[in-house]
Amino acid sequence: MRTHALIAATLGLSLALPVAAQEADERPTPNSVVEGATADEWEAISANDLMVMRLADDAEGNRREVVIQLMPKPFSQGWVDNIRLLAETNFWDGTTVYRVVDNWVTQWGDGEDDKAKAKPLPEGIKVVPESEYVVGDQPEDDHCGYHVCPANRQIKLSEFRTIEPYGTGAISKGWPVAVSGNQVWPTHCYASVGVARDLTPNTGTGAELYTVIGHAPRQLDRNIAVVGRVIEGIEHLSTLPRGKGGAGVYADDMERVPVQWVRMAGDLSEDAHPKFEYLATDSASFTEYVRVRANRSDGFYQVAAGGVDICNVQVPIRRIKAAE
Amino acid sequence: MRTHALIAATLGLSLALPVAAQEADERPTPNSVVEGATADEWEAISANDLMVMRLADDAEGNRREVVIQLMPKPFSQGWVDNIRLLAETNFWDGTTVYRVVDNWVTQWGDGEDDKAKAKPLPEGIKVVPESEYVVGDQPEDDHCGYHVCPANRQIKLSEFRTIEPYGTGAISKGWPVAVSGNQVWPTHCYASVGVARDLTPNTGTGAELYTVIGHAPRQLDRNIAVVGRVIEGIEHLSTLPRGKGGAGVYADDMERVPVQWVRMAGDLSEDAHPKFEYLATDSASFTEYVRVRANRSDGFYQVAAGGVDICNVQVPIRRIKAAE
Repeated sequence: MRTHALIAATLGLSLALPVAAQEADERPTPNSVVEGATADEWEAISANDLMVMRLADDAEGNRREVVIQLMPKPFSQGWVDNIRLLAETNFWDGTTVYRVVDNWVTQWGDGEDDKAKAKPLPEGIKVVPESEYVVGDQPEDDHCGYHVCPANRQIKLSEFRTIEPYGTGAISKGWPVAVSGNQVWPTHCYASVGVARDLTPNTGTGAELYTVIGHAPRQLDRNIAVVGRVIEGIEHLSTLPRGKGGAGVYADDMERVPVQWVRMAGDLSEDAHPKFEYLATDSASFTEYVRVRANRSDGFYQVAAGGVDICNVQVPIRRIKAAE
Repeated sequence: MRTHALIAATLGLSLALPVAAQEADERPTPNSVVEGATADEWEAISANDLMVMRLADDAEGNRREVVIQLMPKPFSQGWVDNIRLLAETNFWDGTTVYRVVDNWVTQWGDGEDDKAKAKPLPEGIKVVPESEYVVGDQPEDDHCGYHVCPANRQIKLSEFRTIEPYGTGAISKGWPVAVSGNQVWPTHCYASVGVARDLTPNTGTGAELYTVIGHAPRQLDRNIAVVGRVIEGIEHLSTLPRGKGGAGVYADDMERVPVQWVRMAGDLSEDAHPKFEYLATDSASFTEYVRVRANRSDGFYQVAAGGVDICNVQVPIRRIKAAE
């Protein structure tokens, strides 16, 4: 017999609660809170922050497209600028996904070991200092800047309790971040996109990127630039065969998955241009969504945790339906 | 150019450090500590705790075998007993992997929705009460029972700081657990194996199992029985196509992956019988391994976290090589 209720426990926002569970229990779930949010609680994501990566079709001829949302100011902006430039100059066209490590990352780019053969970077690529991994010196009265909002817009940090060495979890304008003293930095969570690099003090350019396909590697926070997250098509990267070469690089170059092209969404034709919105993280529904996530009490849960890991607070994001 | 150092940051124990990184930096890494452990610090895993699941070959004809280590006493023993009985009576032979949800779980078993058609369970399957999700009433002086060990064998809980609502992380005889007051329970981490079930107060039998293929869903702790972990072959479950039916169940039954058989390792012939060992979690090398994981300072890391999430402390496990 298939057990329904682990199914009901699924947190993926695209998955409706099974009818049986809805009938059995009317207590709110994260999904039901998101479904009940009003239209004005959703905010459109700018085309300037969306990047689309088209991989070669899969073996059955199915299209594989990955949509990445880039981080907003003030986080990692040096690398984000480089990434926009790389997309606008078609740098990634003809590169590959060349490394996949289970419970770690999927990585793509030129992937050429020999510097003499490496694909040249476009002019204007910046070298970004390590200091930009963190945003510091935040004025203490900037209460609604990006980690603490006042009164009715407040997201209580206590509801995002997280591992102290990794900082206190918070949500800033739709993004998970960590806060410690007057410093704030973006966190590595599942589907986060980061900038691969050489040993310190190298910080990477943005030309080689990875996404997290396992448990949040929070030890990388403040050591690598987080520049965005995959918001659609993560399965095209997370289901790829794991690499059997050194460090999970594909042993045979034939295993590499061709990247046909990467474009900023605004540079695609109108019909190919994906549009998304996210549940505003200063909305009443988002606050309720976090409260319910931290205190699951629907028919599946017997014990509520009373808190939630910052990487288990996925910000609700959905496609904007085309007008009829 | 391929960037070497994100590669160097890979924590998978099967991956050696790249030569370049080794030459550049002799500071210890989790891998180097494990490689330096002495033979007597490794403990064999009993065949009575190992279960092997053979899936149908993949499209290229490659064998797919998954090895699961079952949890030791005192955790989840009612379900573990059921699981041994199910394996010994060949219950899973001819069942399927029927549900795969990205960043959540891969689930297998009979997968039959209609109770009238469900595969009958063997005689002797127990109904396990919810109270067994947690091990409570531990004597306060049982300091080396399974969460705090004295003096030179001590694993400092402070090095496993974790999210308070999810309990304090600790390691018990090779397993990640959470501790709160006098209660201890096994944690949901990547590759954990748990018992799918219906709504509370149903606790599941063990006939339908899942493994975690994403960020640790710690909210399930104390709500579902964790019974073990995948120690080899997780990629055969984590790379499967995600289900597109309701709640990630495969929409078309043809997509289901046949389970050819599941057996306890001791019931396999000697040459098919996998043998593993783990780095004893009361060994000096394990303590050093945790310290290094919590304080990464090799050539890749600029900022050490000073702590580590319990689900990022993967206990080192390796195959025992056959005698020459």
